[in-house]
Amino acid sequence: MNADEPRADLSVGLVVPRKLAIGAALPLDCGRTLPGHELMVETYGELNGARSNAVLVCHALSGDHHAAGYHAAGERKPGWWDSAIGPGKPIDTRRFHVVSLNNLGGCRGSTGPNTVNPATGELFGPDFPIVTVRDWVRSQALLADALGIERWAAVIGGSLGGMQVMQWAIDLPQRVRHAVVIAAAPRMSAQNIAFNEIARQAILSDPDFHGGRYYAHRVVPSRGLKLARMLGHITYLSDEAMRERFGRLLRDGQFNFNFDVEFEVESYLRHQGQVFVERFDANTYLLMTKALDYFDPAREFGDDLAAAFRVSRARYLVIAFEADWRFAPQRSREIVKALVAAGREVSYAQVHSHLGHDDFLMPLPQYHKVLGNYLARVAEEVGT
Amino acid sequence: MNADEPRADLSVGLVVPRKLAIGAALPLDCGRTLPGHELMVETYGELNGARSNAVLVCHALSGDHHAAGYHAAGERKPGWWDSAIGPGKPIDTRRFHVVSLNNLGGCRGSTGPNTVNPATGELFGPDFPIVTVRDWVRSQALLADALGIERWAAVIGGSLGGMQVMQWAIDLPQRVRHAVVIAAAPRMSAQNIAFNEIARQAILSDPDFHGGRYYAHRVVPSRGLKLARMLGHITYLSDEAMRERFGRLLRDGQFNFNFDVEFEVESYLRHQGQVFVERFDANTYLLMTKALDYFDPAREFGDDLAAAFRVSRARYLVIAFEADWRFAPQRSREIVKALVAAGREVSYAQVHSHLGHDDFLMPLPQYHKVLGNYLARVAEEVGT
Repeated sequence: MNADEPRADLSVGLVVPRKLAIGAALPLDCGRTLPGHELMVETYGELNGARSNAVLVCHALSGDHHAAGYHAAGERKPGWWDSAIGPGKPIDTRRFHVVSLNNLGGCRGSTGPNTVNPATGELFGPDFPIVTVRDWVRSQALLADALGIERWAAVIGGSLGGMQVMQWAIDLPQRVRHAVVIAAAPRMSAQNIAFNEIARQAILSDPDFHGGRYYAHRVVPSRGLKLARMLGHITYLSDEAMRERFGRLLRDGQFNFNFDVEFEVESYLRHQGQVFVERFDANTYLLMTKALDYFDPAREFGDDLAAAFRVSRARYLVIAFEADWRFAPQRSREIVKALVAAGREVSYAQVHSHLGHDDFLMPLPQYHKVLGNYLARVAEEVGT
Repeated sequence: MNADEPRADLSVGLVVPRKLAIGAALPLDCGRTLPGHELMVETYGELNGARSNAVLVCHALSGDHHAAGYHAAGERKPGWWDSAIGPGKPIDTRRFHVVSLNNLGGCRGSTGPNTVNPATGELFGPDFPIVTVRDWVRSQALLADALGIERWAAVIGGSLGGMQVMQWAIDLPQRVRHAVVIAAAPRMSAQNIAFNEIARQAILSDPDFHGGRYYAHRVVPSRGLKLARMLGHITYLSDEAMRERFGRLLRDGQFNFNFDVEFEVESYLRHQGQVFVERFDANTYLLMTKALDYFDPAREFGDDLAAAFRVSRARYLVIAFEADWRFAPQRSREIVKALVAAGREVSYAQVHSHLGHDDFLMPLPQYHKVLGNYLARVAEEVGT
């Protein structure tokens, strides 16, 4: 075995999430201010004495702070990006101190719709403000302050996570050494927004949604959230990958002439939808889709993305996946083009893939090689 | 003006739909038999003495018998394919006798879920059998018998309509002289099925669906049907067309930080969904999506599409649209390839377009030229 190859069997092992209280007031884009908030955080690897080796991992729509390792011995599934984070993996925890958090508005312990509003003693529910990617960057910067991290060696994220990376580099140029933007887009297209809007309508129109106050009714808008997730999955897989994986396979080998599951792809979608309902909060889902739709860093710069990037100081790695049609390589190339126009240093990798948008979570050798090699150079640069 | 150009201002004028009773028993693919059924029909242009100039137009998912002309003076909107059917138009009613029907299971007057089951005196509702494209061809053949049409000069349809065209040519080879297959596919892909399944789940999980017996409750599953239609619209438009049409335009010019309509594309989708709820029946929508999913003429021929086409005798025109991602040109080329392998005569046109799947309903000059020229030769051939 080549020592350079990432070893999939290596894990950060058992990890314990922490809840960090951020005391400082947080002004939000919507005009409201949160007097304080809490963030669920996990860290992997040691912070070096110079505090120069910290890496921030930003999660995507349905992610959380649990990016790597296990919460308990014998657990079947590790964190959502365990394939990339660990000793000897592309985000090498022998060299980096990796920080992963559940974003503000999330549903896994950070202050969000399903937590208590201190002002009322009730759950926030629909009273939780709609947050933006910029708000997350502000919140994450307060977290960095609390952790004593002045400058990130790298901020890394895929999909909505990649949008946070770009916003970090633009809003806090001095605090980001390297920006790793994976499977992202400079902003949502009309089609992207359309998918989100249908997901939102599915949730909002579910009678069990109760205007977002479903907690008090002891129900969840499971039908709507399930539909939203099923719809999401269509955009996470390529047409080709769906064909390879499910084709027109029939679960019973024949048509049943009813509306029960017949094709394997139906079974897959219903299962994914059901599993999601059990682990995710509908109000948070709504917030996440809005954060996606609002993301548009060029907007404050006269719709000139290059002008936005010109204020950044980071060096960039942009990675796109050929089979991704949610945020196709073309969208990543828009980012690269603007970075080049802005005179920023950027490496671009277009990875051969076939799964689709979900490829950013997969340990594709070419992808992990690009990411690992880039971060190895970052590690040398920061002396870790 | 060039006399060869279709004239958009020419219409078949006022038309009166007829309800035709089909007395013969209709055995269905699901194993059940309908003792008789009724079909709503419109015809445009005169049947010639030799009865050789009849053209059957098959409708798509949400279509009906009203393909051309107007039902009343002063009506704003003509039939759904008025751009292509009329005097001097590609399907020229000065030469052809055009027959258009609402398919069995439809909701515009033909026997379907929202009509009375003679056996019970109640509306069929969910007791209406799931019908297939093959069933429609059988039903349409009985209609042809009733109309005294032994052989169609051409059977023409787009999308799900194009699937009926292929099934006609395969199941009743002697009765189809020309088969015009527009914006279709030889069968649904896993992704196509996935979209349909989410639309079905939206309807089936709507509390107002009442297991399909919503008529008795004097409600309609409007939330589910609206979502289904919104989802459909995503697949009818190309990403590029959505970008050109809506981009990221904000209705109020600013973010409102709530879940009301903000982006123009949201407004468009909600409107399309609402309008559809007012004109379409949810049980029929379910049936139509199943007919799409089940369509697979190669299935009875060992999954060999060429073998299926080998039994047909028609000559074919296959038309695809470059911007169509629902049934992309690649899918039409699969049809063409199988036809060539089967030794059938086929013309193929890939039309430059940008709207998407909906292009098949648009009067694109290149498209109408191809269609009109082809049918002009058919007219000469049948002596009309």
